Amino acid sequence: MSIEFLIEARAGAARAGRLTTPHGEVETPVFMPVGTLASVKGVPQEVLEELGVEILLANTYHLYLRPGVEQVRKLGGLHRFMSWPRAILTDSGGFQVFSLNDLRKVSEEGVTFRSHLDGSSHFLSPESAMQAQIGLGADIIMAFDECTEYPAEPERVRASMELTLRWAERSKKYFEEHKNEVPWNKVSSFQFPVSGELEARNGKPETGNSERTQALFGIVQGGMDLALRKESAERTIEIGFPGYAIGGLSVGEPRHVTREIVEATVQHLPAERPRYLMGVGTPEEIVEYANLGIDMMDCVLPTRAARHGLLFTSEGRISIKQAQYAGDESPLDPNCGCRVCRRYSRAYLRHLYASNEVLAQVLNTIHNLSFYLDTMRAVRHSISLGRGARFLSEVWSRAKL
Amino acid sequence: MSIEFLIEARAGAARAGRLTTPHGEVETPVFMPVGTLASVKGVPQEVLEELGVEILLANTYHLYLRPGVEQVRKLGGLHRFMSWPRAILTDSGGFQVFSLNDLRKVSEEGVTFRSHLDGSSHFLSPESAMQAQIGLGADIIMAFDECTEYPAEPERVRASMELTLRWAERSKKYFEEHKNEVPWNKVSSFQFPVSGELEARNGKPETGNSERTQALFGIVQGGMDLALRKESAERTIEIGFPGYAIGGLSVGEPRHVTREIVEATVQHLPAERPRYLMGVGTPEEIVEYANLGIDMMDCVLPTRAARHGLLFTSEGRISIKQAQYAGDESPLDPNCGCRVCRRYSRAYLRHLYASNEVLAQVLNTIHNLSFYLDTMRAVRHSISLGRGARFLSEVWSRAKL
Repeated sequence: MSIEFLIEARAGAARAGRLTTPHGEVETPVFMPVGTLASVKGVPQEVLEELGVEILLANTYHLYLRPGVEQVRKLGGLHRFMSWPRAILTDSGGFQVFSLNDLRKVSEEGVTFRSHLDGSSHFLSPESAMQAQIGLGADIIMAFDECTEYPAEPERVRASMELTLRWAERSKKYFEEHKNEVPWNKVSSFQFPVSGELEARNGKPETGNSERTQALFGIVQGGMDLALRKESAERTIEIGFPGYAIGGLSVGEPRHVTREIVEATVQHLPAERPRYLMGVGTPEEIVEYANLGIDMMDCVLPTRAARHGLLFTSEGRISIKQAQYAGDESPLDPNCGCRVCRRYSRAYLRHLYASNEVLAQVLNTIHNLSFYLDTMRAVRHSISLGRGARFLSEVWSRAKL
Repeated sequence: MSIEFLIEARAGAARAGRLTTPHGEVETPVFMPVGTLASVKGVPQEVLEELGVEILLANTYHLYLRPGVEQVRKLGGLHRFMSWPRAILTDSGGFQVFSLNDLRKVSEEGVTFRSHLDGSSHFLSPESAMQAQIGLGADIIMAFDECTEYPAEPERVRASMELTLRWAERSKKYFEEHKNEVPWNKVSSFQFPVSGELEARNGKPETGNSERTQALFGIVQGGMDLALRKESAERTIEIGFPGYAIGGLSVGEPRHVTREIVEATVQHLPAERPRYLMGVGTPEEIVEYANLGIDMMDCVLPTRAARHGLLFTSEGRISIKQAQYAGDESPLDPNCGCRVCRRYSRAYLRHLYASNEVLAQVLNTIHNLSFYLDTMRAVRHSISLGRGARFLSEVWSRAKL
């Protein structure tokens, strides 16, 4: 057993559910904060818990390079390494290989690339990407895919999709043969009892989860071609995964195209499995895609924007660097109950940002994550009330973005 | 009324006391973390409260340049600006003017200097330094002094000491005439109720403290000359302040000289007034100086060292960047109960540091401050038990540094 997914309420295409992982439950639709190097930049794990984060995303590519998969594996896997008792998802590394490496070389076998850190040469294949993700030990891991560039010629899109399908088969094969190598039950004791949350959630210590394994999700590609997306979905489902992601979007295409592809692709995905839209989006987009039936999303936007002083509030976006906030004693967002809005003024946050103080990054990130998580809570609440298409505009008026 | 100081226990020259300020009580001997720009770099105020910080130091020079004194004053002063309900001390700006400005020009009137930010020209005098510190509204403010460089010729040391004495008179005169301009009671309401701590401590809201004023401390100079230190102490006491600082140390002189000057100077300071040793020191030094009868200290060392990966532990100093910690699952300090040591491993802290993650700075700073505050708590406890010279070696075995 790897994960369980229960849909508890529906409203139109949208669903509210509960994803049970080896490291706790995740209420869906869920936004997953990005912790690239096993850290959501600037935010301690205990604050993420306080914010109600139930699942984090970490990047295989970055962790593969630093501190290295073997190091994390020896330390008991990501959960133990970063002292995070709740769920984790890792991407396959494919997207970063494509986006961070101009000198990559793709073959049937896999991808040769150079480290963005030191230029050293590396090779990732479906097999080695699975090996890496098994070693890191996230609860949900992703098939190794090729993220098709945009724009691309039709033949190129098909060839890329076919390659991703062959890699999906190889990913699944390797995973099935090696899934018991996940580091969770190799560790005799969890030295940092942390919050005791694991035990509380699962009724038993982590080391008792030996019957549980990771869940490998497949990824649908097919560029901006609706027919190819349908074919990719059907053939990926044929291979068979406990969850399905929509990849290859947010790669430069217009927003309405993204929406069209998501809406069409979702219809070809099995209703009873979690659907993960990768790399999305703004507050308004995560609401919109939840409304289309997406269950999981991730994006660097709330954390990256925070580091650049762009803050999401119920009254719209705020660029905190602006001089107009220098004397503004009001909280960042009067409708937000996060520890930043409860305590600090816009004037102080503006001062921290303008003075290049590290605390600016810490506080801004906490608020933006809080806003995203609150938005998702509002979405789930609306779905659970069965408010079909109406819920969107209600959440809208809150997100107003 | 500005401050009250009660000595509750003595052990040899050492004293344990209670300093009551307009923003709460401070147990002494106390180590004051440095929050240069109204932020202890990387650490939210709620975490400082959790650590037991009762008084912070902020730098007038930096705040004068950014965001500017008038801005802070209009926002109700530093406490309200940074949402810190406990005590604050500001330095006079003099030390930074001397240490950060090669092009400064000292006259009888004051110091002309250029901003290290934009090269703009500024002038600080005893009067303007008082005006700035009254506007910032710390509980304890410092007379404007000249920090004599080291080494210096005897005539230069005397001339500098005499200047500091004249400036002390002018500082006191300006302060006495303007002390009611402190911004605390200009603010009709405290918009961020924060932790309710102020009310809890003082039995009344901040706005009710209108009868309280800041406390201006005098500063003893005199270089490394014991006779001049004695004269400086006596003549500063003659001017009359509610507390006295020893300045002009930790400017490059050998450690044994610092110790000798402190030990000799303390004997000339009134027993019933708080004694503040500026800019000191290592964990071993703060224990040593507390033992000599010092009540207050501040230093950037724990916070700055943290940012460079140098961590203080009960088992000695740790440079967390070292490869030997990459696989070390033990907590940073097995004898420390801070939130970092309770949750994270050395391996994870090493990874964060090596990966240049902002969380490294956040967690390292929290731990180092925790270590300093724990050390001071141990010192106070020893004094309260009346353990004269013996307490030092006992705390020693804990600090082992």
